[in-house]
Amino acid sequence: MASTDYKADTERGKEVVPPAAPPTVNCFAADITLRVLLFVASVAAVVSIVTANQTKIIPVLGEREAKFNHLKAFIYFVVALSIAGLYSIITTLASISVLSKPALSTKLLLYFAFWDVLVLGLVASATGTAGGVAYVGWKGEDHAGWAELCSTYDKFCHHVAGSLAVSLFASVVLVLLSWLSIYTLHSRIPK
Amino acid sequence: MASTDYKADTERGKEVVPPAAPPTVNCFAADITLRVLLFVASVAAVVSIVTANQTKIIPVLGEREAKFNHLKAFIYFVVALSIAGLYSIITTLASISVLSKPALSTKLLLYFAFWDVLVLGLVASATGTAGGVAYVGWKGEDHAGWAELCSTYDKFCHHVAGSLAVSLFASVVLVLLSWLSIYTLHSRIPK
Repeated sequence: MASTDYKADTERGKEVVPPAAPPTVNCFAADITLRVLLFVASVAAVVSIVTANQTKIIPVLGEREAKFNHLKAFIYFVVALSIAGLYSIITTLASISVLSKPALSTKLLLYFAFWDVLVLGLVASATGTAGGVAYVGWKGEDHAGWAELCSTYDKFCHHVAGSLAVSLFASVVLVLLSWLSIYTLHSRIPK
Repeated sequence: MASTDYKADTERGKEVVPPAAPPTVNCFAADITLRVLLFVASVAAVVSIVTANQTKIIPVLGEREAKFNHLKAFIYFVVALSIAGLYSIITTLASISVLSKPALSTKLLLYFAFWDVLVLGLVASATGTAGGVAYVGWKGEDHAGWAELCSTYDKFCHHVAGSLAVSLFASVVLVLLSWLSIYTLHSRIPK
């Protein structure tokens, strides 16, 4: 609606201000909400897996501990989700700062869309990596001779499962964030 | 350059055609190239892992075969990369059809950007899943009691490694495709 008026005005030769202000506020409010959700999800995923320690006494073998840093896949997962958490803080602050300066918003939307896509790739791959290894721990892989571990380390596995569910949610939030930036950029192109 | 002329002309009140045509052609030429690369990478990744069969005679155990469908992570990987390959065919055809009808291109860029982000999430997660499990097969995980397999199934592991490298390349291509669509959308917004 606003962009149609803008087009009509420019065709009549009037000097008009580009219709940036009203959609900017709406878009950035949704944007900030999603970025806060991303932060909460990233922190929850990291905390859940880092606190997943479980010690069990196994016959013959003695005391055995399950910790996230025993598996490389989970270390990568924690690093990736920590980066996503840090990224969500920086971009939430950037998004809030733009609320008072709408002129900056188009450039920022471009940067947001670029970085959101990159962080999505990181979080999706980390969720996949940890998920693939967690599945082996849950069900085992008979052909490879890898035994399941979750009947022994049940608390550890529950923490990992919770962490994976939250990081899947973080991936969905990142897809929505990318879509929001892309849609807002598209809505500013004169029809 | 073109958008600056456009802005100057609209300010002077002249009736001008929006500068859609020249950037459209350039952008879609790069777009088509990247989509063809995505197709080649997806097919190469699927073919490499599907043809990775290796049979070995293991003392005591007898004849043993390594196949991609023995591990759930690799099945997910093949499904995801097949979807990416199919997607690249459909979008390459769509991109080619737009070369002759530039009017459709802005809407198509929006759809491309939306779907590219989604397919990136799929391919990145599949690469992570297969990569995490392949790492366990390559190095083993002592804490989990999972033995490495690659010293036995060397040919199988080489195929999987090649497949993972190509699918990582496909993820990079998908990031570039998303960036290209986003950048082109951004460049069409009047400054």
